[in-house]
Amino acid sequence: MSRTVLVLNGPNLNMLGTREPATYGRETLADVSALCARTAEQHELTVEFRQSNHEGEAIDWIHQARGRCAAIVINPGAWTHTSIAIRDALTASELPVIEVHISNVHARETFRHHSYVSGVAVAVMCGFGTNGYRLALEHVSHLLNNKG
Amino acid sequence: MSRTVLVLNGPNLNMLGTREPATYGRETLADVSALCARTAEQHELTVEFRQSNHEGEAIDWIHQARGRCAAIVINPGAWTHTSIAIRDALTASELPVIEVHISNVHARETFRHHSYVSGVAVAVMCGFGTNGYRLALEHVSHLLNNKG
Amino acid sequence: MSRTVLVLNGPNLNMLGTREPATYGRETLADVSALCARTAEQHELTVEFRQSNHEGEAIDWIHQARGRCAAIVINPGAWTHTSIAIRDALTASELPVIEVHISNVHARETFRHHSYVSGVAVAVMCGFGTNGYRLALEHVSHLLNNKG
Amino acid sequence: MSRTVLVLNGPNLNMLGTREPATYGRETLADVSALCARTAEQHELTVEFRQSNHEGEAIDWIHQARGRCAAIVINPGAWTHTSIAIRDALTASELPVIEVHISNVHARETFRHHSYVSGVAVAVMCGFGTNGYRLALEHVSHLLNNKG
Amino acid sequence: MSRTVLVLNGPNLNMLGTREPATYGRETLADVSALCARTAEQHELTVEFRQSNHEGEAIDWIHQARGRCAAIVINPGAWTHTSIAIRDALTASELPVIEVHISNVHARETFRHHSYVSGVAVAVMCGFGTNGYRLALEHVSHLLNNKG
Amino acid sequence: MSRTVLVLNGPNLNMLGTREPATYGRETLADVSALCARTAEQHELTVEFRQSNHEGEAIDWIHQARGRCAAIVINPGAWTHTSIAIRDALTASELPVIEVHISNVHARETFRHHSYVSGVAVAVMCGFGTNGYRLALEHVSHLLNNKG
Amino acid sequence: MSRTVLVLNGPNLNMLGTREPATYGRETLADVSALCARTAEQHELTVEFRQSNHEGEAIDWIHQARGRCAAIVINPGAWTHTSIAIRDALTASELPVIEVHISNVHARETFRHHSYVSGVAVAVMCGFGTNGYRLALEHVSHLLNNKG
Amino acid sequence: MSRTVLVLNGPNLNMLGTREPATYGRETLADVSALCARTAEQHELTVEFRQSNHEGEAIDWIHQARGRCAAIVINPGAWTHTSIAIRDALTASELPVIEVHISNVHARETFRHHSYVSGVAVAVMCGFGTNGYRLALEHVSHLLNNKG
Amino acid sequence: MSRTVLVLNGPNLNMLGTREPATYGRETLADVSALCARTAEQHELTVEFRQSNHEGEAIDWIHQARGRCAAIVINPGAWTHTSIAIRDALTASELPVIEVHISNVHARETFRHHSYVSGVAVAVMCGFGTNGYRLALEHVSHLLNNKG
Amino acid sequence: MSRTVLVLNGPNLNMLGTREPATYGRETLADVSALCARTAEQHELTVEFRQSNHEGEAIDWIHQARGRCAAIVINPGAWTHTSIAIRDALTASELPVIEVHISNVHARETFRHHSYVSGVAVAVMCGFGTNGYRLALEHVSHLLNNKG
Amino acid sequence: MSRTVLVLNGPNLNMLGTREPATYGRETLADVSALCARTAEQHELTVEFRQSNHEGEAIDWIHQARGRCAAIVINPGAWTHTSIAIRDALTASELPVIEVHISNVHARETFRHHSYVSGVAVAVMCGFGTNGYRLALEHVSHLLNNKG
Amino acid sequence: MSRTVLVLNGPNLNMLGTREPATYGRETLADVSALCARTAEQHELTVEFRQSNHEGEAIDWIHQARGRCAAIVINPGAWTHTSIAIRDALTASELPVIEVHISNVHARETFRHHSYVSGVAVAVMCGFGTNGYRLALEHVSHLLNNKG
Repeated sequence: MSRTVLVLNGPNLNMLGTREPATYGRETLADVSALCARTAEQHELTVEFRQSNHEGEAIDWIHQARGRCAAIVINPGAWTHTSIAIRDALTASELPVIEVHISNVHARETFRHHSYVSGVAVAVMCGFGTNGYRLALEHVSHLLNNKG
Repeated sequence: MSRTVLVLNGPNLNMLGTREPATYGRETLADVSALCARTAEQHELTVEFRQSNHEGEAIDWIHQARGRCAAIVINPGAWTHTSIAIRDALTASELPVIEVHISNVHARETFRHHSYVSGVAVAVMCGFGTNGYRLALEHVSHLLNNKG
Repeated sequence: MSRTVLVLNGPNLNMLGTREPATYGRETLADVSALCARTAEQHELTVEFRQSNHEGEAIDWIHQARGRCAAIVINPGAWTHTSIAIRDALTASELPVIEVHISNVHARETFRHHSYVSGVAVAVMCGFGTNGYRLALEHVSHLLNNKG
Repeated sequence: MSRTVLVLNGPNLNMLGTREPATYGRETLADVSALCARTAEQHELTVEFRQSNHEGEAIDWIHQARGRCAAIVINPGAWTHTSIAIRDALTASELPVIEVHISNVHARETFRHHSYVSGVAVAVMCGFGTNGYRLALEHVSHLLNNKG
Repeated sequence: MSRTVLVLNGPNLNMLGTREPATYGRETLADVSALCARTAEQHELTVEFRQSNHEGEAIDWIHQARGRCAAIVINPGAWTHTSIAIRDALTASELPVIEVHISNVHARETFRHHSYVSGVAVAVMCGFGTNGYRLALEHVSHLLNNKG
Repeated sequence: MSRTVLVLNGPNLNMLGTREPATYGRETLADVSALCARTAEQHELTVEFRQSNHEGEAIDWIHQARGRCAAIVINPGAWTHTSIAIRDALTASELPVIEVHISNVHARETFRHHSYVSGVAVAVMCGFGTNGYRLALEHVSHLLNNKG
Repeated sequence: MSRTVLVLNGPNLNMLGTREPATYGRETLADVSALCARTAEQHELTVEFRQSNHEGEAIDWIHQARGRCAAIVINPGAWTHTSIAIRDALTASELPVIEVHISNVHARETFRHHSYVSGVAVAVMCGFGTNGYRLALEHVSHLLNNKG
Repeated sequence: MSRTVLVLNGPNLNMLGTREPATYGRETLADVSALCARTAEQHELTVEFRQSNHEGEAIDWIHQARGRCAAIVINPGAWTHTSIAIRDALTASELPVIEVHISNVHARETFRHHSYVSGVAVAVMCGFGTNGYRLALEHVSHLLNNKG
Repeated sequence: MSRTVLVLNGPNLNMLGTREPATYGRETLADVSALCARTAEQHELTVEFRQSNHEGEAIDWIHQARGRCAAIVINPGAWTHTSIAIRDALTASELPVIEVHISNVHARETFRHHSYVSGVAVAVMCGFGTNGYRLALEHVSHLLNNKG
Repeated sequence: MSRTVLVLNGPNLNMLGTREPATYGRETLADVSALCARTAEQHELTVEFRQSNHEGEAIDWIHQARGRCAAIVINPGAWTHTSIAIRDALTASELPVIEVHISNVHARETFRHHSYVSGVAVAVMCGFGTNGYRLALEHVSHLLNNKG
Repeated sequence: MSRTVLVLNGPNLNMLGTREPATYGRETLADVSALCARTAEQHELTVEFRQSNHEGEAIDWIHQARGRCAAIVINPGAWTHTSIAIRDALTASELPVIEVHISNVHARETFRHHSYVSGVAVAVMCGFGTNGYRLALEHVSHLLNNKG
Repeated sequence: MSRTVLVLNGPNLNMLGTREPATYGRETLADVSALCARTAEQHELTVEFRQSNHEGEAIDWIHQARGRCAAIVINPGAWTHTSIAIRDALTASELPVIEVHISNVHARETFRHHSYVSGVAVAVMCGFGTNGYRLALEHVSHLLNNKG
């Protein structure tokens, strides 16, 4: 059984550590990638860590995960609130999806309170900072270990 | 007068036949393409059959249809509900647009009930399965035959 | 297996060809009836073509179709947006229902954008002019041919 | 040029004088009919005075007025707020329509504040009691006299 | 004092026992009529049991109940949610009205949650199956017995 | 008993005949004033005809009408939709109020569909052109004649 | 099989007979309790009659009914409109629930029109006064008798 | 510095393992308590594990945590969506709050999509099953370790 | 005639002086109690000063005030916006109610702008700090002095 | 430091004592002015008591209060609900503002529930009758005494 | 052809430079007037620079501009969001209107996001500070130069 | 200090001059580019003029502007109303943003009235035609000149 996890980051997350540090902290996406790698190793998972500002590219990656990955951890960024295409791609993947947001979106602008992804995700977390990625991967491991 | 029809498919339709068969059926997009080709031949139309997960690419294709194609048959997928850019591109094409959905979107989630495309389309159909593409092409032929 | 189709027209459709030709065209309901008869013949269907301005009468006809017809093609006219009774009658008929509108209702007043019928229909089409009736009957034939 | 006016009364108006006299007064529909006849005579109009609780019947009457009457004065009663079919019939009549309500609907329940008829009427009045019928007929006369 | 009760059933209730048995059960309207007759006898009431798919006919029956019946038990079916004309007729009857729904409308589609009748009814019940008719008649008896 | 009527015109009505003639016609406010004077004479009423663009001035005039006039005919213009102060002044006048609009406000922008005045008026009319003023004064006369 | 019914009354119902007699009548909760006891005896049911102003206490009682009672008859009072916790407790009880309101909540303030309980109840009644409790218990008996 | 964490469970969570296992799983609250104790030990935290169906009691416990605990992990159950009092108590505690839901509330009824707690929480998670408690405690440890 | 006033404080007000001093100031509830006592003495009133985090307890106290107290001064805290039970208890008390909020709730979160209590209160004040309690008691005295 | 207070009354308040005494009482604005003068004297304040039906005049007075008065007590009447200009003038004055309404606006029409002034006021009170002016001035005195 | 431009400023703009300098800057309206004069001179325009807190006065000025001025540059201040009378006056002027706001209204309170003026303006700008007046006049010059 | 300005055009603006000339005019994007170049030269600015139909590409360009450009002038086209990703990219750029629309979006469809960009822009303008680009660049120059 696959233990590969697609960790997919949406638009503007390449600016992490630079963009609005009061909201998102000072760690860069490279730091997050390293954290995911370390966590994956601890749990005998393999992580494919990706970021794109191009919705079409992200959809392609989600399609490619189907039948090959064990789960998707996604921080959809701004697509969370606007992209039904991402939602439909995640459904089409037939994989368990964990939605992660670095900041607590519920304490921000109203338009960030609704997520098109949450309805098709297994689990959702926000406000855990970059530590959320680690917890999400631990949960993937937990799910896989309790499956078969 | 052009008898070329752009048949344009939006995001995730490349997964047709695989993704949610209970909703979308078991035919693949290649099957639909073949069906369109056969229908076109019967009605002396030429079909350009396209699919993209990239909104920008779809917009480019719509722009290129202007002044060269006779009509656009579009299944905008998830963009139906979120993309004003696709709507504006269709308006800019100055072509008759037929909007097709494989499933009956009105019997699904509320957010699938509104379409930005319908307001600028000539005609809209949903729930006819892949047969909808054939009927849409027949209607294009009907429109062209009754024009001049 | 029955190949009879009830083609049912709602209020004001008896005025077709007279009423607002810019919206509905110049063909009369008699023309549509003839078109349906011709199409039915091509597809070995029998059409019962009806129109009423009386909701109760339409409900009675729908009840009578149950167990006797193979499908209902309905242009509910103004009832589309206001009649839950028609919706419930269609459900009670246990027949596949195809909803047809001559004009593109989505490009008209907001109150014409919602349909009580669509949620219980198999398929919905609008803006195909009177040609929509022909396409709807073709689809009925398609459904019946692919059934058994 | 026709000087015949269809004066059409919707559901429950046959109960006038009986039903909720605090709201609608003590005059009966026969009184209103007589008032209309007297007013018509003063202005050289002919009045066809009708009432129905059957929407389909009312629609039929409106259709029959087309090309034969000069105007329609309608008190749509409860249909005001619920019937798009009546609205569409009035549009199909291609006649000037004056909408009359005996009570001031704006001072009653919220659901009586919206009228589907007003958008296709020439003029709207409410709260004038049965005298509103007289004023409406005077206005029809005024319109006809200032036409040619 | 009259002990006659109009038991009035709205559209599609003639299909009871046939239509959606999972929602409405397997008893027919004839069964309900018999149940009402038996209950009435126990409580020295007379029942006039009616059903119509024609709103105008129902309004006429309600008008005729005025001054002659002691109460109205109404299952307005789909009219519940759309007919202000029925509501106004019930008000005009000046009778106590008990609104009955066989299924629990609050556990169904949102558009079934609002009733135009409830605001003018004495009491409202739903989800009691056909037993609701029996309980409603018992309550009419209770009201009449405690009146004088 | 007073037979004086305050006929009060709100903002921009001084531009009548000039402003948007397609909507408001070519008659000037002086023409309307003359029409009111003639009508008043026929019905033994006295008219005080006023116009102001200053809400405060209009409120003062309404206050002064109290106890001195028999009724107020008001065309509140844009204040219709925005001024609770005018509404409260009309209530404070303790006079019957007839609200008149030259155009059919219900066939115009949505924000013109709601009136703060209607809830405290006896009667409301719109779309009767300048003839509406004449009809309103006739109704005042009718009310006064039927009072004592 | 248990024939015990928990009859549970929400906040302020201890004031019955005292509080707003125009709305709730003059019978006290003790009268209702006695009525329930008599009705239960007639139908071979046992009633546990409770009232609390403390939501937590009510939740505890509902939990305790699980697996021990045959049904719950609940008049949730003000909790009807605000308490998801009561709703969840009722769901957790896995018992048939009958929701009873003494007054016709649909004829009162808008905020009393929505019930969190109705969606998980078997049946709902309002406006039957204290007689509603008797009818609800009769229905419980009817359900139990028709079960096995 | 305190390393005590209040783990607070809202209404109906005492039914865990019993209530709707399809939604909440088969583990009991005692199992969760044990899981929390084990996790706390691994991270040198002390856990105070509480559950109440009484909002007032929960508020008292939150007040008592102030100045004594290091963080609050709360599963507010149904209070999530209805209790501003709990929200205000959490604010008054001046402690970091982590909101945990066992099920993915976003994939359930609409009324479960809004949380009064999220706006004052540091982080929010749902759908992680009982494993969410473990992850929340890990995050508390992470926060405390990165503080000073 | 009673001159006893129930001064009732809702949830979290026991934290006054501690909780969010920027919003609520530095005075404690004991200070407020003393202020009320002093004010009462000046006006020959007796104050029963209470606080509870338990809605049921507050309801009980309100019930007990009926027929024994002259008025209720209530700071309902968070219940203001969520508790219909408190509203109903206040109505049941048949006492004049003055609603007091220490902070100006209209300058805070939108969900604090609506009060279930205001509709049944005689008077409402907010933003007067703890001085509001004093002013409220003065007004109670004013009301009592001007009564008989 | 200035101890002058602008007491500003909005439209229709000149009708106080005359207009709707059931709502506003029988005291005139002159009575209120005298009450304010007496109260001011007790608290060593100077009151400038004004009323206008002209929004522009009120705005001018508010501007003139800036830097010269210590506070504004305003009863904005109908402007409360419609005038952003008054709100902006109050902000521009940089003075503490106390908003007073004689009646309890929350127990009246819905459109009286929202205030544009409250968001920029220090404190808001309604339903205290004319005594509210006295309490407001006492609070101004309280604020000034506790300032320096 | 006229090259006169009415530059009209709404309520509270006389406080510019004083009122909320963080939002509106430190320049006074006299500074803006001088800037407009300089800009006008550069572009051979004549500026009539006005400010009023009185809506009626502003309406009068707009009426007077008709047929005499070439354009209106308006900063409607608070009237932007509340005055249909100003909108109607601008329409009646039959002049091109440029709407200017000093601050970016879209980044402020929600009630400042909607403008009644924008729908009848040629162009709208906000957030350009006082420089916006200069740019608006440049655009008027651009429009006039490109007209004939 | 950088004097480079990114002038960024969103989807379909490559069709300018072709697409809907009644709305957008006859100038092409090349004309606009030339206009920007000329204006930039006059103000000693450098312009990078870009257009894309690909949101991801536009986001990349905005990221690249950070720390290198002095400002962004953006005509987001259809993304205005749908793209939170563009909004977030603009925030991440930490540059002053001027939002430009060629047409007056407020006089078009309702869905064009809301902009996700305006909330993070310094200034917004619409309806100035292509001249708006020139004015926007002038304002950038104005901002830069007044900075240091």
